[in-house]
Amino acid sequence: MNPSETTEILEDDATLQLDANDNLRHLLTLKGLSSTLLTEILDDAEYYLTAPGELPARTQSLAGRTVGNLFFEPSTRTRASFDLAGRRLGADVLNLDVNTSSRKKGESILDTIYTLEAMQIDLMVVRDASAGVPAFIARHVKDHVCVLNAGESDLSHPTQGLLDILTIRQHKPDFANLTVAIVGDIQHSRVAMSASQGLQTLGIGELRLISPPAFAPDADRFPGAMIVDNLADGLKDADVVMALRIQRERIGNLDGVPGIDEYFAHYGVSHASMQHAKPDAIVMHPGPMNRGIEIEGTLADGPSSVITEQVTNGVAVRMAVLDRVGKIMAAR
Amino acid sequence: MNPSETTEILEDDATLQLDANDNLRHLLTLKGLSSTLLTEILDDAEYYLTAPGELPARTQSLAGRTVGNLFFEPSTRTRASFDLAGRRLGADVLNLDVNTSSRKKGESILDTIYTLEAMQIDLMVVRDASAGVPAFIARHVKDHVCVLNAGESDLSHPTQGLLDILTIRQHKPDFANLTVAIVGDIQHSRVAMSASQGLQTLGIGELRLISPPAFAPDADRFPGAMIVDNLADGLKDADVVMALRIQRERIGNLDGVPGIDEYFAHYGVSHASMQHAKPDAIVMHPGPMNRGIEIEGTLADGPSSVITEQVTNGVAVRMAVLDRVGKIMAAR
Amino acid sequence: MNPSETTEILEDDATLQLDANDNLRHLLTLKGLSSTLLTEILDDAEYYLTAPGELPARTQSLAGRTVGNLFFEPSTRTRASFDLAGRRLGADVLNLDVNTSSRKKGESILDTIYTLEAMQIDLMVVRDASAGVPAFIARHVKDHVCVLNAGESDLSHPTQGLLDILTIRQHKPDFANLTVAIVGDIQHSRVAMSASQGLQTLGIGELRLISPPAFAPDADRFPGAMIVDNLADGLKDADVVMALRIQRERIGNLDGVPGIDEYFAHYGVSHASMQHAKPDAIVMHPGPMNRGIEIEGTLADGPSSVITEQVTNGVAVRMAVLDRVGKIMAAR
Repeated sequence: MNPSETTEILEDDATLQLDANDNLRHLLTLKGLSSTLLTEILDDAEYYLTAPGELPARTQSLAGRTVGNLFFEPSTRTRASFDLAGRRLGADVLNLDVNTSSRKKGESILDTIYTLEAMQIDLMVVRDASAGVPAFIARHVKDHVCVLNAGESDLSHPTQGLLDILTIRQHKPDFANLTVAIVGDIQHSRVAMSASQGLQTLGIGELRLISPPAFAPDADRFPGAMIVDNLADGLKDADVVMALRIQRERIGNLDGVPGIDEYFAHYGVSHASMQHAKPDAIVMHPGPMNRGIEIEGTLADGPSSVITEQVTNGVAVRMAVLDRVGKIMAAR
Repeated sequence: MNPSETTEILEDDATLQLDANDNLRHLLTLKGLSSTLLTEILDDAEYYLTAPGELPARTQSLAGRTVGNLFFEPSTRTRASFDLAGRRLGADVLNLDVNTSSRKKGESILDTIYTLEAMQIDLMVVRDASAGVPAFIARHVKDHVCVLNAGESDLSHPTQGLLDILTIRQHKPDFANLTVAIVGDIQHSRVAMSASQGLQTLGIGELRLISPPAFAPDADRFPGAMIVDNLADGLKDADVVMALRIQRERIGNLDGVPGIDEYFAHYGVSHASMQHAKPDAIVMHPGPMNRGIEIEGTLADGPSSVITEQVTNGVAVRMAVLDRVGKIMAAR
Repeated sequence: MNPSETTEILEDDATLQLDANDNLRHLLTLKGLSSTLLTEILDDAEYYLTAPGELPARTQSLAGRTVGNLFFEPSTRTRASFDLAGRRLGADVLNLDVNTSSRKKGESILDTIYTLEAMQIDLMVVRDASAGVPAFIARHVKDHVCVLNAGESDLSHPTQGLLDILTIRQHKPDFANLTVAIVGDIQHSRVAMSASQGLQTLGIGELRLISPPAFAPDADRFPGAMIVDNLADGLKDADVVMALRIQRERIGNLDGVPGIDEYFAHYGVSHASMQHAKPDAIVMHPGPMNRGIEIEGTLADGPSSVITEQVTNGVAVRMAVLDRVGKIMAAR
């Protein structure tokens, strides 16, 4: 990023994503989105689900539009998911490895954005390691351009949150009586943040965030959540257990953070630890998994796992969001 | 690859690729495919050939399907060939540089595959440096998913074999009376393996494998082939001469392997050495060529060369195979 | 490049790009193209412009054709621009990172080209750091294949020249009375070369090339242009001011070349230096910009700047050229 570019997080980032009629025009964060809007997006996403082996759902609602995949951080699955979502709505998708090109040449983010805008790339999917970048871009694009956050620092990953919530809703629709436990490096997890924000808006019964003390989040980042450091306590009678991917380099190098084996023993989501949860609890993971570290391999492959459903729902949720902002854009 | 993943080559890999009605549902190897099936594929491929300058052949038989190009080894031409083949059949094609992404993150092959499957990528084109990977994947995908081997270790490159055989058939259809000579590093060549397997099934007259002694294959890997270390003897009255790409780093660093100049003098396919072959013999090479090492440049550009026809046939053969497995998939 | 490949610049490169009826069949350079032809291309390009927020212009004139983007030098914006141009004309576009693949394997340029040709990639967009490569390729492809130069050494970047000229024409159509000033490292600039060639063919009033003495071009490369080393003199009463991107590594390391701050003070296109130009002068830059080095950021974002229009025109110009050579190709 150009040092002169200010990407601090502003108070109005959550409202920035809604237009005057409260329609979604960017997707920057799940924070501040109403339960009505969240529910509408989830309902739309259901429409794009077809059975394995059938042709994937397909429309022409973005025909003629161009989606730009701007990943300033490497990614395979999220990028592929947005790529397929865009194409299955009839859009052209341009994958831009901004990592290895413009930025290396010292170009500012905004100049890259203005260039893409001038090429009539009207839907920009942005992943960036720095907090504030998607909102920063959204504040600067032309009125007809939409920005979708595809992963932002430790802060936000709204389409991941939506796919997680959709998956939970498919299996456990009674949110008011639901206990969801998220296990892992909560402090650094944009996945935990977005899922928590959406689940709380939808009135989840109880949200527990389980981590070693060194990975515990600041409580004010997750208002209303229970912060727990004992796995057995955290999983007790949970309906949904979500293991987070752990950065291997973070384990064992930090004071108070256990090594790999110890991590699995104390915080691994396993057949053993799942004994504390409800018998019909489902197991989730955003992928890619470190089998044997944060999750037991046979559990991930077993009947309680909904991990591949999360991936399928990911394409559907991204289609729903792209279609929604595309329609708002066309109507303006 | 995840160390816990077993990709050993199993007895039934050759049968794994056929369904209960002996229809092709994966393409893992040419070994074990019947001459009827091989001939059908070659006939289909002919259908996709158009004259240079005309529009390439195009159908919508894979419209709505998604092809994933999973290259765990770098490739330009094979990947481009599959990419064009898929798109010219109406499919969406997703190119995945698995090299530089998931695998680096320590994700297991199967988790990558399950992820792509969950995104409804139903046709997976796989290249991998390790033997057994395509079959390993084929054993684990859902019933409706098809796996195509795009190059596997030293072992198998079935679409390359098919394009080679198609090119030979176009020029020399009388297989029973045909002598085919393959020259180069036979021991490490998946190209030689696949061509040999297919040609022998189709009842080729004589197959000669010519290499320096250090590159000679184990005889039991090529049953029925004549293993020769003298180029003049090997080329004598040959109808078809196929030079293999040599890895430069293998020449001159190995006991009993000649240096570049010596290699060309003793094993180079050249105007001089082609004097031993039949006057109307054709010259082949899978590309990319090391001109002046395994093949003489002016010979590669001359009238006996069918090297660019091989490339054209490559797209056609891949269209034929993709179309075939796609139809089986749709019928299931 | 293979050392045996001769890519010297030949006398007839400029004529090579026209067929017997003076139709454009390759685009290698703006040199030698008639004002009639240039004007036709610019007129065609206007047809592909739509308002921001509207759907981009779209035809099916290249439906069924395949465009190959062969970038032997890295690029994001020019590649994206050609990619979108091809797709918006209905073509399949294949992006080939030739940098990191074939060439590394020692394959010759011509073998790469013959391979793509054999895959029925009929429109080849080529960027290369070596002078003569696009013409070299054009001399060797089949009659129906078209080559478009997307940036060649310090020598030529014809679609950039066209988009610059189109942008100028939109704002300042009275070319006979126009003064255009180009500022920067003229000596190494293919952008300056192509713009100058086209503008002079179209009878521009006055062309001034402004640079530090160390970056001044050989006068015979720019016949008819005024070579100036004082910015104030060069900008005096100019209608159009084009700043060139400077390679940072060239500043401050060369005798007689000023450091960054000094460069901006003496050769920066800024609010201050623009006082010398006409009050309604427009400001251009090919991108990506080094803000604060060759151009002042607030000027680039201000009302006199037409920089994003250049980008929009870039897609339109490339569509016009692709469509034109595609039609000639189809008619042959």
